[in-house]
Amino acid sequence: MENSYALIMAGGIGSRFWPKSRQRMPKQFLNLVDRQSMIQSVSERIQSMIPKEKIFVVSTREHVEILQKQLSWLLPSQIIYEPYGKNTAPCIGLSAIVLSKRDPDAIMIVLPADHLITETKLFQKTLQQGLKLIEQNPDVLVTIGITPTFAATGYGYIQKGEKQRESIYRVKKFIEKPKLDKATKIWRSGDFLWNSGIFIWRAGTILDRIHKYMPDLFFSLQEIVPAIGSKDMDQVLKRVYKNIKSESIDYGIMEKSENVLVIEGSFGWNDVGSWEEVYKVLKKDSAGNVSRGKAILKDVKNSYIESSDRVVAVVGLENIIVVDTPDALLICAREKSQDVKWIVEKLKKSDRKKHL
Amino acid sequence: MENSYALIMAGGIGSRFWPKSRQRMPKQFLNLVDRQSMIQSVSERIQSMIPKEKIFVVSTREHVEILQKQLSWLLPSQIIYEPYGKNTAPCIGLSAIVLSKRDPDAIMIVLPADHLITETKLFQKTLQQGLKLIEQNPDVLVTIGITPTFAATGYGYIQKGEKQRESIYRVKKFIEKPKLDKATKIWRSGDFLWNSGIFIWRAGTILDRIHKYMPDLFFSLQEIVPAIGSKDMDQVLKRVYKNIKSESIDYGIMEKSENVLVIEGSFGWNDVGSWEEVYKVLKKDSAGNVSRGKAILKDVKNSYIESSDRVVAVVGLENIIVVDTPDALLICAREKSQDVKWIVEKLKKSDRKKHL
Repeated sequence: MENSYALIMAGGIGSRFWPKSRQRMPKQFLNLVDRQSMIQSVSERIQSMIPKEKIFVVSTREHVEILQKQLSWLLPSQIIYEPYGKNTAPCIGLSAIVLSKRDPDAIMIVLPADHLITETKLFQKTLQQGLKLIEQNPDVLVTIGITPTFAATGYGYIQKGEKQRESIYRVKKFIEKPKLDKATKIWRSGDFLWNSGIFIWRAGTILDRIHKYMPDLFFSLQEIVPAIGSKDMDQVLKRVYKNIKSESIDYGIMEKSENVLVIEGSFGWNDVGSWEEVYKVLKKDSAGNVSRGKAILKDVKNSYIESSDRVVAVVGLENIIVVDTPDALLICAREKSQDVKWIVEKLKKSDRKKHL
Repeated sequence: MENSYALIMAGGIGSRFWPKSRQRMPKQFLNLVDRQSMIQSVSERIQSMIPKEKIFVVSTREHVEILQKQLSWLLPSQIIYEPYGKNTAPCIGLSAIVLSKRDPDAIMIVLPADHLITETKLFQKTLQQGLKLIEQNPDVLVTIGITPTFAATGYGYIQKGEKQRESIYRVKKFIEKPKLDKATKIWRSGDFLWNSGIFIWRAGTILDRIHKYMPDLFFSLQEIVPAIGSKDMDQVLKRVYKNIKSESIDYGIMEKSENVLVIEGSFGWNDVGSWEEVYKVLKKDSAGNVSRGKAILKDVKNSYIESSDRVVAVVGLENIIVVDTPDALLICAREKSQDVKWIVEKLKKSDRKKHL
């Protein structure tokens, strides 16, 4: 549809990919699984549905250079800057006021910048279903749920309610990342989908819901509206954002709102949340290793080895992750790849902030 | 005694300490276990017995700079250069002709440059015993054996023969590095000592034995004698060395010779033959780790972690060795630290010779 826009949320910091991800180079700008970066893949994937000039990216000033380098076709007017990260509700609210000022009928396809999707055609088909739902009922909030393939503890879940038609359900409940026992029950029930963080709605509809369920955020956003497109924008944003509460769109709106539908999709979705996930997604050699760069391996199995410009020799080890960068090195048991966040916390408290 | 000289053999290449040891920086010049390098420790240990001007070092031209830097008091005339490494028999033979030309009565204490000795006083006492034996019988070859503390497969052994007096035996047999089952038998028998590679003899005596058991080497050495101290030395050495056969002094002389005695010593000797040995020798923290440089460890046990100028983060691993240098990195299971040699062989065959 002519009034459809893509909104790529690129504000993540991705500390679980240290030492390759850094404050200046978060996950979405890395080529973890493809030859191009994750944000390049996301934007390419959406371009066959949405023309380039209707693709918007939410980012921060800190990342503008790398963003413009990686998406060189992006006009300055297509970048929405957040002065601070305040989770997804303010990010989506800010984008909604920017888009609805430009086009009062704007429909937003909200896409995280750092997810992997392998079945592009099925993905596009799912989004088309969402746009159709909104055409039929402009007041609906559409979220995309993923058919789960195992009892994941790293994802939130959406409980399917009343079936509307093939693959489309009312939403009964949102569930935050569960512990393993709960995840196992949830998965076995067949009643739940993974929450992909992909949404489709009219900008006006989500602003109505923000008005209703997050009035403080709504009035803060109203203060920003007059500055949109003016040279005061940055200054106004900074002042207003200071007092905005961090909140996720799931908790702030989706869990409370009426008229929420979920479309069940199966398009090879993966949020690639850790080095372990990167390892799992990539093609292995006959010993089960993924080796990138100058690695020399002897008696190494089922491991991920990535070097930059140095020789990395590994001997007699299994199930490890090695990521070598010019100024920092990670060596991690595969099953502990979630603990990489701990390293980043440790660095924050140390005098080695240059390695963040 | 006035005519005693120390001969430090510093020709080793130590590929088992890659990536820290390199062709230009072999093991003996590294500070693996002390604040000073191994050759600095060896030379310091012998200085209370032998005056500096009677300490000689056998090395190669390639290592002269690092040698003179580390042993700054060494005069050029105290360095004996080998054009190529040809194992210990030619090295000791060459040193014997140099020393006996300088002092026909010279007694040589032959010391490998890359061994660790923790009990210096006991070590000196053992050497004094050796010098005394030679005073009593100038024709004897004295070797130092170490009381074994476990069934080592990494050392050669010396079988004790007829007891001469406390701690001194005739040598019955030399045994090369045994397999584990044989090593266990040897160790249990109580009849054997580790072969330390430390020898004491008159330069004239070892030359006699070379004449008798390695006549080819003896006549090659005779060709060199006239050039000693002249500017032709390098050229003559190169020409003669080309045709000299590689041979160890153990195999070439000690196993065949009459009149060989062994002194049993217990002075905390260790040849520090691998990263595993370095780990074992050093002081551990409460988790059993040895950590040098900028390391961040989480859930790491019984491991050796050494970094140079980069941050090294290790998560959830046990019993590993990590050695990080500016251009090459080793990550190795502790039990596989002998396989580091394999990496060096692999590099030799590759296009990465700069990492050797």
